[in-house]
Amino acid sequence: METEFVDWLLANIPADARLEVPPGDDAAVLRPPAMRRTVVTVDMLTEGVDFILDSNCSPHAVGRKALAVSLSDLAAMAARPEAALVAVALPRKGGDAIGRGLFQGFMELATEHGVTLAGGDTNTWDGPLVVSVTVIGSVLPGRAWRRDGAQPGDHLLVTGPLGGSLLGRHLAVSPRCREAVSIAEKFSVHAAIDLSDGLSLDMARMMRASGTRGVLHLADIPIHADAIRMSRSASDTQSPLEHALTDGEDFELLLALPPSEAQNLLAATQNGCVDLQITMIGTVETGSGLTAIHADGACHPLEPKGFLHAFES
Amino acid sequence: METEFVDWLLANIPADARLEVPPGDDAAVLRPPAMRRTVVTVDMLTEGVDFILDSNCSPHAVGRKALAVSLSDLAAMAARPEAALVAVALPRKGGDAIGRGLFQGFMELATEHGVTLAGGDTNTWDGPLVVSVTVIGSVLPGRAWRRDGAQPGDHLLVTGPLGGSLLGRHLAVSPRCREAVSIAEKFSVHAAIDLSDGLSLDMARMMRASGTRGVLHLADIPIHADAIRMSRSASDTQSPLEHALTDGEDFELLLALPPSEAQNLLAATQNGCVDLQITMIGTVETGSGLTAIHADGACHPLEPKGFLHAFES
Repeated sequence: METEFVDWLLANIPADARLEVPPGDDAAVLRPPAMRRTVVTVDMLTEGVDFILDSNCSPHAVGRKALAVSLSDLAAMAARPEAALVAVALPRKGGDAIGRGLFQGFMELATEHGVTLAGGDTNTWDGPLVVSVTVIGSVLPGRAWRRDGAQPGDHLLVTGPLGGSLLGRHLAVSPRCREAVSIAEKFSVHAAIDLSDGLSLDMARMMRASGTRGVLHLADIPIHADAIRMSRSASDTQSPLEHALTDGEDFELLLALPPSEAQNLLAATQNGCVDLQITMIGTVETGSGLTAIHADGACHPLEPKGFLHAFES
Repeated sequence: METEFVDWLLANIPADARLEVPPGDDAAVLRPPAMRRTVVTVDMLTEGVDFILDSNCSPHAVGRKALAVSLSDLAAMAARPEAALVAVALPRKGGDAIGRGLFQGFMELATEHGVTLAGGDTNTWDGPLVVSVTVIGSVLPGRAWRRDGAQPGDHLLVTGPLGGSLLGRHLAVSPRCREAVSIAEKFSVHAAIDLSDGLSLDMARMMRASGTRGVLHLADIPIHADAIRMSRSASDTQSPLEHALTDGEDFELLLALPPSEAQNLLAATQNGCVDLQITMIGTVETGSGLTAIHADGACHPLEPKGFLHAFES
């Protein structure tokens, strides 16, 4: 029953000094941090597209992922996470247990990132599970990273190894919020985007927004062991590199920085000052689209590929 | 295709000075109004429960309603609307046209209420339409209305006539944002809630949150002409009063005020200073639950009834 479920939720939300009015009223009232901007984004996950509830994917994992993908968007803006709201459509049958598991996974990651749950909406219906998470962060005025600031001459850096996330990492996302805030404090970043739909597609989005061309050194792309494992499967037709370029759900960050800043950031990761694998994978040039450069120096235009929602007419 | 649809959306969002970074990046950046709190709430509507897309209910109407129900929650806090985010799961078949209609209805109401669209997420899937709307408002510190502030001795006032919203008003919701902000500026309101799930159920929620009992003068409840029309239908088994007590989706406001303030507010509506029908329907007393008083003075406990989401085990 909705009332009991909501009472249980409200009883399990920790108090937070940022809330003038906590969840449970018609809306929550937040004290915005002084002298900072408010950063907002929403992501919706649907069963059958973003996850399938089965023995490999619990409601707990879905709750965690639903928050993680939104937090990854805050990381791409170098914003500090503050609060979240979650709306769910729960299957009528078994929805109570699904809702509780989902909430627990959500709260686990919220606690790790200092996010207070500021509101929600619980629905039941005859359809599959749908979860929509809005996150609210904060950033100093004029200091949010954007995807449209890449400039010719910038170096392109990427966090983490990429590809093969479907083998499990897509459910155990570690949004790069702390790392992004830490990098933003010390280095001048021209543009940033998170890798949700595939390196080539997300890089193409940054280049399109910036009015620039991305040059990608294929041999330098950090390939995840999962991408290699996937390509070894008999039914798989893609190389590890193709997985790294197109799989998506890496939730790593692609950054464009002036060369000197890029070198400083790479040096900081190598001496352990920034606790993150960061790799230089290319440069920003004039023009548009993507250019791939092979190890032997051959180059060709690269068609961006990755995950896109499609309509049928 | 997602890219074209999102490009069309972004091209049709008016610029707004409150946005430091507009929609289209990983997140939007808002300039929060100085010296005010941030008010946030989310509501999700699902096809088959909250609406059925047919000749009586267009995607345009759903878009408008999805924003309206969230704005009604801001009205219940006396918050000024500022921004909204909308996440949709569109049916794969025909989703493009549904999405465009929905956006147009959404933007129509957003413009009426000075709401800027700060973000969104567009998904397609094989399920029915799901829309989740987060709204962000602002209010002076300590001035948000709450549902837990009703005090014994308060008068209970309700806006608008109630009941029978299913005959069409549930799709043409007029959230009481402007009226609430105007009342909050001039009158001391102890508690407020919006009537989304039915007068008796929402009043019971206010009483429960406040630790008080609500006494309802049944003869004073303003009954909408739609409630009378519904109860005249051959298949209908409820009286107009029962419709007014339990139908829900009125999206009017229930307010608890000290007697002198209640009288001042009623006088202001009668002389036209507040442009709204407001009716005194009862009082707040010690105890718990609801008491109904009939025209002849007979009284009995009133069981709250209205719309609740239910699980099946």
